[in-house]
Amino acid sequence: MARALVTLLTDFGTADGYVAEMRGVLATGARDTMVMDISHDIPPQDVDAARLALARYWKRFPEGTIHMVVVDPGVGTARAALAVESHRRFLIGPDNGVLSPALLAPGARAVRLSVPPAASPTFHGRDVFAPAAVHLAMGQAFDALGAPVSEPIIRRTPEPHRAADGSIEGQVVTIDRFGNAVTNLLGVRGGSVIVAGRTVAVHHTYGDVAPGEPVAVVGSSGLLEIAVRDGNAAHGLGIVRGAQVILRAT
Amino acid sequence: MARALVTLLTDFGTADGYVAEMRGVLATGARDTMVMDISHDIPPQDVDAARLALARYWKRFPEGTIHMVVVDPGVGTARAALAVESHRRFLIGPDNGVLSPALLAPGARAVRLSVPPAASPTFHGRDVFAPAAVHLAMGQAFDALGAPVSEPIIRRTPEPHRAADGSIEGQVVTIDRFGNAVTNLLGVRGGSVIVAGRTVAVHHTYGDVAPGEPVAVVGSSGLLEIAVRDGNAAHGLGIVRGAQVILRAT
Amino acid sequence: MARALVTLLTDFGTADGYVAEMRGVLATGARDTMVMDISHDIPPQDVDAARLALARYWKRFPEGTIHMVVVDPGVGTARAALAVESHRRFLIGPDNGVLSPALLAPGARAVRLSVPPAASPTFHGRDVFAPAAVHLAMGQAFDALGAPVSEPIIRRTPEPHRAADGSIEGQVVTIDRFGNAVTNLLGVRGGSVIVAGRTVAVHHTYGDVAPGEPVAVVGSSGLLEIAVRDGNAAHGLGIVRGAQVILRAT
Repeated sequence: MARALVTLLTDFGTADGYVAEMRGVLATGARDTMVMDISHDIPPQDVDAARLALARYWKRFPEGTIHMVVVDPGVGTARAALAVESHRRFLIGPDNGVLSPALLAPGARAVRLSVPPAASPTFHGRDVFAPAAVHLAMGQAFDALGAPVSEPIIRRTPEPHRAADGSIEGQVVTIDRFGNAVTNLLGVRGGSVIVAGRTVAVHHTYGDVAPGEPVAVVGSSGLLEIAVRDGNAAHGLGIVRGAQVILRAT
Repeated sequence: MARALVTLLTDFGTADGYVAEMRGVLATGARDTMVMDISHDIPPQDVDAARLALARYWKRFPEGTIHMVVVDPGVGTARAALAVESHRRFLIGPDNGVLSPALLAPGARAVRLSVPPAASPTFHGRDVFAPAAVHLAMGQAFDALGAPVSEPIIRRTPEPHRAADGSIEGQVVTIDRFGNAVTNLLGVRGGSVIVAGRTVAVHHTYGDVAPGEPVAVVGSSGLLEIAVRDGNAAHGLGIVRGAQVILRAT
Repeated sequence: MARALVTLLTDFGTADGYVAEMRGVLATGARDTMVMDISHDIPPQDVDAARLALARYWKRFPEGTIHMVVVDPGVGTARAALAVESHRRFLIGPDNGVLSPALLAPGARAVRLSVPPAASPTFHGRDVFAPAAVHLAMGQAFDALGAPVSEPIIRRTPEPHRAADGSIEGQVVTIDRFGNAVTNLLGVRGGSVIVAGRTVAVHHTYGDVAPGEPVAVVGSSGLLEIAVRDGNAAHGLGIVRGAQVILRAT
């Protein structure tokens, strides 16, 4: 059997040693497991940023992968701790919508993790989520982790809608490190967008415009993005998360 | 025999390639070793920040783990390079107090690493500490690494003290990425603290107060922390590292 | 056979999930490969910063290591995607000069990777470079990756030159996280430098001057560096990348 594979996504940063504590629990409980850092740079408590990152990668890993996601502003409240089985991958994290990409897939199942009495009320990543990952990494049964949860919390990216004049109104869902503005517009094949007071044509790729020029392209996840070639669209065009984006056929 | 496990904590950042050089030395000398990044984001030359992070994680890893800590403003001076055996873990780093959490444990032993003539005087991480980690990862004897050091440098977190009126005066030891102010107050079971001119009640967990409200809780390492629920206590309350924290019974 | 070893250097950051997608492709295609993050904090589109980091580490890893470098402002233009064999290591990345340290070594060979029709024009890291790394990690032939490229793009650090008065004029090539200014002056054994209007003596190591004082030392890659002991030379002395550095014998 291949060694188990655990991925970690948190908003902890690394400098305080919290991620290291979780890694210590994993290394002690499931010694030969491969543990991969996805990121610890999610903005503090930004559940949607973690959800959107997770949507990109969770199904690209092999079957059996255990994805831990600990962006958990509600730790120490009554929110449930979850394990999810979806598409033959496992996910572990709080019941705050961050696991929605996996929960929304057909056939997904969720169970509620029990919280040991000695668990720190401020650090379920170490005391609840990491032990659950060890359980799965050691090949133990998913169903033994807890009782089924019938209605886990779901968070969704807002859907675009069609305006009276036939244009489609979407929005900027996230700004990436390059300043590219990723929208919620899927399946775009041409036309132009109006964003931040500016009209930007849809092209095939960045190289279709001159350096410094704005361009809209279908990005690597299929969503329309607004970029500036060799530049930063968010700074250059004044685009922020949530900004309106109107798609027109011409 | 399980593969050796090496952890890395530095203040190098990653972008310059220095950590990569250390990893290259480890991969070349001890190919199958698992190397884990703890953090490379310790503030430059902040020995205490590294010491406090190390205190959190070093004993959570399995016996035999080799913890490298390279936060070393004194590189190229006469300061010694150390290897430590403590609690059946190994630690490698400069003799500047950063390894104190392990050195203070009962039974700890330290040896002074020899510095090869060809070692760069500015990069012992690559030329002294990484080769020592390779030595241990290959199962070679700890004692062969060097001569015993009888009085390694120790750095301690200041102890709280009891004031004449029965209150206890501590301080903020570190601010984490969430803006939580971690104090040196251990074993607190109730009462309130005065910090930055404000009285904050001790509760069980963040969820015991309303969003935006300050709260003191016993954190995941047993130390009292001052937080703001769903917020940032350091920014919101103006708390800095070293700030006085007075604990009262009521 | 030892497990394959893949290293990753990008300017992606980690929070958006792009690196995770690449890791998912690697984990799915070459399950037992060891994948190491070198850095994802290269400044966006800074090809020279990535090239200089790569120069430090590529040969320190074992023979057979596969180094991926994805700093690729030209993705989606006509620039080629390369695989390189050099010094018995493999390198994968865009044809923009970032792989120059390996391309300049004697005996280096480069081939042009084919781009599958379904590849995203904005994310060759996931759809072109990672599959090529899987190919090599699975032990398949380098030559099967594509047709030879005879003149890949080379970027070089500017050479110092000798002035009429016998001094040598170099420049600051990079500023590291500690604020040390790394120059292009190799093989320096003494004398002093003039930089940012200030004369700084060459010493053996930081410890040869008092805390807070500037010092020039031969750094860990053999290049002269200007530092401030226990301080930040770039901030303290006003040194920027590209600044002139004049080396004199006295």
